Amino acid sequence: MNFQPLLDEIDEEIRPLLGQGGTVASYIPALARVPAQQFGIALRTCQGGEASAGDAATPFSIQSISKLFTLTLAMRHLGDMLWERIGREPSGNPFNSLVQLESEHGKPRNPFINAGAIAVADRLLSDGDAKAELLALMASLCGEPIGFDAEVAASEAATGYRNYALANFMKSFGKLDNAVEAVLDLYFHQCALRMSCVQLARAAGFLCRDGRHPRGGEADITTERHTRRINALMLTCGTYDAAGDVAFSIGLPCKSGVGGGIVAVVPDQLTLCVWSPALDATGNSLLGRKALELFVAKTGLSVF
Amino acid sequence: MNFQPLLDEIDEEIRPLLGQGGTVASYIPALARVPAQQFGIALRTCQGGEASAGDAATPFSIQSISKLFTLTLAMRHLGDMLWERIGREPSGNPFNSLVQLESEHGKPRNPFINAGAIAVADRLLSDGDAKAELLALMASLCGEPIGFDAEVAASEAATGYRNYALANFMKSFGKLDNAVEAVLDLYFHQCALRMSCVQLARAAGFLCRDGRHPRGGEADITTERHTRRINALMLTCGTYDAAGDVAFSIGLPCKSGVGGGIVAVVPDQLTLCVWSPALDATGNSLLGRKALELFVAKTGLSVF
Amino acid sequence: MNFQPLLDEIDEEIRPLLGQGGTVASYIPALARVPAQQFGIALRTCQGGEASAGDAATPFSIQSISKLFTLTLAMRHLGDMLWERIGREPSGNPFNSLVQLESEHGKPRNPFINAGAIAVADRLLSDGDAKAELLALMASLCGEPIGFDAEVAASEAATGYRNYALANFMKSFGKLDNAVEAVLDLYFHQCALRMSCVQLARAAGFLCRDGRHPRGGEADITTERHTRRINALMLTCGTYDAAGDVAFSIGLPCKSGVGGGIVAVVPDQLTLCVWSPALDATGNSLLGRKALELFVAKTGLSVF
Amino acid sequence: MNFQPLLDEIDEEIRPLLGQGGTVASYIPALARVPAQQFGIALRTCQGGEASAGDAATPFSIQSISKLFTLTLAMRHLGDMLWERIGREPSGNPFNSLVQLESEHGKPRNPFINAGAIAVADRLLSDGDAKAELLALMASLCGEPIGFDAEVAASEAATGYRNYALANFMKSFGKLDNAVEAVLDLYFHQCALRMSCVQLARAAGFLCRDGRHPRGGEADITTERHTRRINALMLTCGTYDAAGDVAFSIGLPCKSGVGGGIVAVVPDQLTLCVWSPALDATGNSLLGRKALELFVAKTGLSVF
Repeated sequence: MNFQPLLDEIDEEIRPLLGQGGTVASYIPALARVPAQQFGIALRTCQGGEASAGDAATPFSIQSISKLFTLTLAMRHLGDMLWERIGREPSGNPFNSLVQLESEHGKPRNPFINAGAIAVADRLLSDGDAKAELLALMASLCGEPIGFDAEVAASEAATGYRNYALANFMKSFGKLDNAVEAVLDLYFHQCALRMSCVQLARAAGFLCRDGRHPRGGEADITTERHTRRINALMLTCGTYDAAGDVAFSIGLPCKSGVGGGIVAVVPDQLTLCVWSPALDATGNSLLGRKALELFVAKTGLSVF
Repeated sequence: MNFQPLLDEIDEEIRPLLGQGGTVASYIPALARVPAQQFGIALRTCQGGEASAGDAATPFSIQSISKLFTLTLAMRHLGDMLWERIGREPSGNPFNSLVQLESEHGKPRNPFINAGAIAVADRLLSDGDAKAELLALMASLCGEPIGFDAEVAASEAATGYRNYALANFMKSFGKLDNAVEAVLDLYFHQCALRMSCVQLARAAGFLCRDGRHPRGGEADITTERHTRRINALMLTCGTYDAAGDVAFSIGLPCKSGVGGGIVAVVPDQLTLCVWSPALDATGNSLLGRKALELFVAKTGLSVF
Repeated sequence: MNFQPLLDEIDEEIRPLLGQGGTVASYIPALARVPAQQFGIALRTCQGGEASAGDAATPFSIQSISKLFTLTLAMRHLGDMLWERIGREPSGNPFNSLVQLESEHGKPRNPFINAGAIAVADRLLSDGDAKAELLALMASLCGEPIGFDAEVAASEAATGYRNYALANFMKSFGKLDNAVEAVLDLYFHQCALRMSCVQLARAAGFLCRDGRHPRGGEADITTERHTRRINALMLTCGTYDAAGDVAFSIGLPCKSGVGGGIVAVVPDQLTLCVWSPALDATGNSLLGRKALELFVAKTGLSVF
Repeated sequence: MNFQPLLDEIDEEIRPLLGQGGTVASYIPALARVPAQQFGIALRTCQGGEASAGDAATPFSIQSISKLFTLTLAMRHLGDMLWERIGREPSGNPFNSLVQLESEHGKPRNPFINAGAIAVADRLLSDGDAKAELLALMASLCGEPIGFDAEVAASEAATGYRNYALANFMKSFGKLDNAVEAVLDLYFHQCALRMSCVQLARAAGFLCRDGRHPRGGEADITTERHTRRINALMLTCGTYDAAGDVAFSIGLPCKSGVGGGIVAVVPDQLTLCVWSPALDATGNSLLGRKALELFVAKTGLSVF
């Protein structure tokens, strides 16, 4: 199927809405100065077909979408031992809450809340040069080099007090093996990956292919079982405190980031990435969600 | 497709496991004395085909599975106004916790935790004879009369202190319109509906048919939009504090009850009900989950 | 010492402030219609000297001040066994919070928060006709009959949903031995005792006399040890979420009620009761606190 | 009055109990290796009389007792502005809990829980060389130089993850003005002050003298009003989660530390310091509490 006309149509419908609502993340200058009036959409099918529209080639800070890739690496390293340190259930609390962490003795509810992703980063660090491994994975998935935005990483490090609190809190429960500074250095860097919609649609490609590499002739990224787990986690926990609403209105496994990107998976069919910097009250891209709703409405591609 | 051989096969695989783990709910005598060593499975396709195996015709107390049907009725009455009183997000807390209710001023997180179902019951009561309406709905869906187990309802009323606490707590926030006793009388009765796997697979049939009645020639049960919402809520919130794991291991919208039943939906294909009284630590039927895992493994029918 | 001129002076200083702030409790009509512009003060020395000023003879609803007397009775019945069900530490949460109760499995933090007083009422009920026992105690302490305000008790029973929630919640943890309705009937009645400042200053007299009856020739009310415990609880937990500030600004063991009364104890010297219906944001009588501050400033009688 | 025989008597009664219970704080090596079987007691009257017994001259790590002195300095600098950042009420949660801090947006409940003391340290830092100021205060109060235990301070800095979490959490709410590292450097140093019972009884002397310097001829340490506030905070919040029990069993304003010291104040009469390293389950010195109970029982000096 040729998705290009569909994406053009969605771009056309979304573009007039740019600037009509939402707020660009402003907690660090490098994010705050991203112009709000941008929108991109890209997809890649299981067979390797691609389509894109709007600002789909513009790189942005992928932020929490990076949690998909570090989780994939950690599951590869540790298998089910990963779950000794991290839960797999929705949290019911804001993504950066400490309350749940206290009542569950430093074990984060799932790998997509900040505490969980920090715990994942800790596990990766124990197994070698995690930054290099992550960059290598991203380059392999995208077929081209991917880099960190050094300014974004430095800003997060300079002002990410809540994340320092989370990491030190887990450390106080003996739930981090590496030094807090090292763990957060990885975490802040993974969040600072710069990628475009086109690149993210490609990179997430293994999630609609039961874990096989997005391109043929390469080693599998992960197993079918792990892929299924990741997709399930995306659907139940991937969009902060809006997971229930996203499951209803979009009905696809999604992972969002405060940079305004959202990656979505149609199992066995395609992966999709939308991007628009202005966020709604739940911290998800306002027009990104709208675009995914249009996509699902127009294609009927939804898991429910 | 003829599912009968498949269900027979699953029954054969599950039956040897009966009695090897899990605990029958014991908080009221009428549930505690149900023999643990029972297992039933039944399904109904969108086209009306049916299959069943094991103790599929044995009636049991559907308990929280009833929340599916009262939610359907309340959405029919109130549309999106329902969500003024009830959230749609996973709770991250035990199904009968009061903590979340306090911090969110008496608004339950979703309609499948106890507080949420009690709030749904309150809304139904405001619109007429809710018990009669529920019985009429169940009879229409099943094509035969369905009744309450009076002993179970009376036991719940006599010992359901946590539910009285939840209801009075919501009432103290002005979030229940009807008298606590009346609301809980409905709630305890809906939980005391007695149905078999065969009946539940039929009754849930509208959930795989975009809301259309399980049988042709009858008025729609609800809209496609509402059906989608219910399925999404089942997947994210339908199995207490195991929703994340169920989404992974089964990958279908499910709603469980402490009577040991679980209803699952394969959108556009079929509905399924399994039953076995012994529960795992999360309050879900141990062998019911196992049977659903087998079903998904053997058919590949899963949303992920 | 003749305290009469001092109380007259305080009355004179407080009276111009009537009507300038605070809010009369309005959650039940019988409290809401009490005229705000009233102020009374009364004291009784260990030696039996009395003084009073303003509306000291006007009866009012003693509300939570009653917790002093039921606690005294329960300690008499049960000694230190009472503390198996009730803690003795400040709560750090609003007086009617359920959160703490959930995390501590139904054991209230102290006998002066609502849950704690309800637990005390339950223990009293197990030992006989608690209402009659309470009335007999009050009559003995005051030297005249004291009665319940039936309208207040009925209103509390009709609208006290939060208290029903607390009691059912404790019952669900197996922490109440008697029926919720019976326990709350006692609780709502004790809160509905009608007494004047003069009567309360007399009734609390045993608290400045190491537990001996306020009048000579009568049996002791409680032991020195229990008296000390009660005074310590008053200082640390007696004024809702203002205990820290009251300890500083007044420096005496105090127990307040939402009817606007506050009882204070100067150990080994005197007991004091002030009353003015308008409450501050912490639920304590605004001018009652002010009057106690004046008393302490003028006499230097404070424990610090 | 000559207190020497009394302290000798208490020492004689306590000494046989050494080694029979409690646990020395073990979270850092420098504390863990302190021999448990030590006990000291010292007092100083308002008039300057002193008495001591047992290991009263042995220096130990004063830990949280230091919060008395930094609070005194901060109140001197800021007066009531201090309370914009720090509450004055008991917390009802463990001394190092983050839950309360989250629900109250980074404002600690009182200056004696860790978060509160860290907030106090932040305020002191904003006004100059706080470490030097603290050392100067301690030297003036004791009449001799007092120093930090560098090993203890370094150990706390190396392992105090919970305190890093608390500080970063407050910083994330904008409730710390200075860098987390600088604030905690002060905090860890204040906790690492090494003093003996004799020195602490002297140093706290202003608390029984309405704020006047323990020795004549020196400038006042603080005002009567502030002294009263500090004493009230000690009584309601000074002994972690045992404040209610300490108020009952001892009935004096107390501040304890995990080094095993407890300072107590008898307003207008004397200050007292006891020390024994083994702690009870609430983190207070087991035999220190016992010794204070004996002191109160033998002298009748208690505020209730």
